[in-house]
Amino acid sequence: MLTLDEAQSIVLSNVSALPAEPAGLVDALGRVLTTPVTAQVPLPPFDNSAMDGYAVVAEDTRGATPGSPRLLQIIDDIAAGVVPERTVAPGTAAQIMTGAMMPPGADAVVIVEHTRPGAPGAVEVFVPVKPGDNVRPAGEDIERGQEALSPGQVMGPGELALAAALGYVTVDVVRRPRVAIVTTGSELVEPGRELRTGAIYNSNQTLLSCRVLAAGAAVGERLHVEDDERAVEDALARCAEADMILTTGGVSVGEYDFVKAALERLGEMKFWQVRIKPGKPVAFGTVNGRPLFGLPGNPVSAMVTFELLVAPALRKMSGRTQCLPPTVQATLASGVSHKPGRREYRQAVTRSEGRGYVTDPSPKRGSAMLTSTVGANSLVVIPEESEGLKSGEQGTVIYPANGM
Amino acid sequence: MLTLDEAQSIVLSNVSALPAEPAGLVDALGRVLTTPVTAQVPLPPFDNSAMDGYAVVAEDTRGATPGSPRLLQIIDDIAAGVVPERTVAPGTAAQIMTGAMMPPGADAVVIVEHTRPGAPGAVEVFVPVKPGDNVRPAGEDIERGQEALSPGQVMGPGELALAAALGYVTVDVVRRPRVAIVTTGSELVEPGRELRTGAIYNSNQTLLSCRVLAAGAAVGERLHVEDDERAVEDALARCAEADMILTTGGVSVGEYDFVKAALERLGEMKFWQVRIKPGKPVAFGTVNGRPLFGLPGNPVSAMVTFELLVAPALRKMSGRTQCLPPTVQATLASGVSHKPGRREYRQAVTRSEGRGYVTDPSPKRGSAMLTSTVGANSLVVIPEESEGLKSGEQGTVIYPANGM
Repeated sequence: MLTLDEAQSIVLSNVSALPAEPAGLVDALGRVLTTPVTAQVPLPPFDNSAMDGYAVVAEDTRGATPGSPRLLQIIDDIAAGVVPERTVAPGTAAQIMTGAMMPPGADAVVIVEHTRPGAPGAVEVFVPVKPGDNVRPAGEDIERGQEALSPGQVMGPGELALAAALGYVTVDVVRRPRVAIVTTGSELVEPGRELRTGAIYNSNQTLLSCRVLAAGAAVGERLHVEDDERAVEDALARCAEADMILTTGGVSVGEYDFVKAALERLGEMKFWQVRIKPGKPVAFGTVNGRPLFGLPGNPVSAMVTFELLVAPALRKMSGRTQCLPPTVQATLASGVSHKPGRREYRQAVTRSEGRGYVTDPSPKRGSAMLTSTVGANSLVVIPEESEGLKSGEQGTVIYPANGM
Repeated sequence: MLTLDEAQSIVLSNVSALPAEPAGLVDALGRVLTTPVTAQVPLPPFDNSAMDGYAVVAEDTRGATPGSPRLLQIIDDIAAGVVPERTVAPGTAAQIMTGAMMPPGADAVVIVEHTRPGAPGAVEVFVPVKPGDNVRPAGEDIERGQEALSPGQVMGPGELALAAALGYVTVDVVRRPRVAIVTTGSELVEPGRELRTGAIYNSNQTLLSCRVLAAGAAVGERLHVEDDERAVEDALARCAEADMILTTGGVSVGEYDFVKAALERLGEMKFWQVRIKPGKPVAFGTVNGRPLFGLPGNPVSAMVTFELLVAPALRKMSGRTQCLPPTVQATLASGVSHKPGRREYRQAVTRSEGRGYVTDPSPKRGSAMLTSTVGANSLVVIPEESEGLKSGEQGTVIYPANGM
């Protein structure tokens, strides 16, 4: 049986970044840039005032004090967005607003708090300035022609604001993966319907739709099929437009495991078991070159295998370079027992405390125990041969704090 | 001038959680529950098999070994979702699928890997089981009538899957705040248009729209107005339906600061300066009981004041109880200088490394330096009276890793 590391490497070698597309700036949030954003204009585009105040010839203010202010004639009032036309000559000043263009002749700005009204039409400056004070020179942040954002950059609010500041309306980013979700199982009833004896409510459709959205991907087809070979194959055919197919159930060793059978017939099965707990019966393959994950039917197993195998694939398809689940070292707030054999992933509540992390694993180990996920934000890793982890010990925790 | 702590406390005492509404499960992702989710059915709803195998009378398997297996007659084949009708008597077994209902008479399941075909219509069991082995009893995870999810719970994929498993189609969650964004400034030109001399591109509209969405809130009106008293007031009037209004620009000490003037006339100004850097000129007040933040016009200042003041308000309005920005202690990867006076927040790239965090502050301090935000995911706090932080020193970092 494959180790998780082997399974992850098979998954990642069978998926690649999706094609790029131009996207409006807000629509590009969280996506990965593919074409550089270059400065078509310098930033700032022109010398401008960093503060509200008076544009002056710095030399004029030399030695100014509250007791011995310098009186300057006001020759202009420069609002942001206008082009100043009058030159500030020695002995004069122009009132200027934050962000407004520096007038010719002036080489510094005295902030309004360091001035007071002088004679009519004049201002008294009582703190001296040096040339360049409170002036933002053109190109200070970025010069024309420079590469502002490079391919591979994850576009957050700051990066997208920078693209806007450079005049961009769209940027080229990797397309969002569109994920089809097919739940299987004749025992599943949709929430809201009557629950007949022997049946349970379908929770995997909700689980996976939410987790896909939290990963920044889009949900495509949402289907449910009975345990029937033909129905499973038809459902997979209906997902032909998806970038990835997720199924739940039907991948174990039983006679009703039609997903496994369909994958073997329609596509190429890469693996169908991994030495982890929960989540051993997890299949991966490709159908028409597109990845298909056959996740276990138990919701906790589906959740764990999503974090360990599906999320890395979505990251790679989204153009990210760090694809494996992010881990931290944490102090266990409570112990967990373990039967040596498979590597175990236990739902846990992890928080940062001072300089490090503390993690509190759920005592509920069952792969159908959905209540173990309540409040959980992470998975404690219990090594294969371990007999458990003690309270106070250090452990590795998968902590995908920022969703993706 | 107010300290940040005072300003945050004024903000939080002037906003409250928005009303609840029923939401479909996927639409409730990331929102806060207001009405308990209780178990209308136990989970699991009935005794069922945890594995693919054979339902047996455990006593029948006592002492079974590969060399001395027990032969049991197969009386049934129980698929998931059906109600078994035949009773498993001693000497018999029913083939059973994971999740299928346990048949009357059986008290354990032998996994299929511990069996082999026997005589026609029979199975050989070569590993013994005890009563209850591989059986999930009804109510093991949660019993009927128990509270599964309590008000205040943030609804992630696991919590929503649990609600689905209990048959819920909708849950009651706090309404998403709808945020109107009004940028002001005659110097601003929308990206894509021609940039006239003295003008700059509007980046704040993009910045704030993205940051609001990343916080799980919705963007309402998106307006831009010139520096004109009447235009600003008209714009605020058009945002009457929003739960919160954000403006940028027009809140300083200059003569063009129409946002401050409008807030004073139309609503109630609570404060308009905070002792932080960047972001000193930030106003907060209420208009018709709704919060209005007058953020500075410089994009880096707008970003910092969003994290420090707006994000906490959005958390409280969204029903969260931990509202202040989350902080961690981190080792500085490089030093930063600081002029004693206002508390400074510097853009930084923070990552977890081993048991702790490392943070690398941007050397760019300017409040208009948008490139300082590229790749940044956090803000290093430089205390008021500090002369800077040295490389290798510990510092406090605002690290809102999970967006909200």
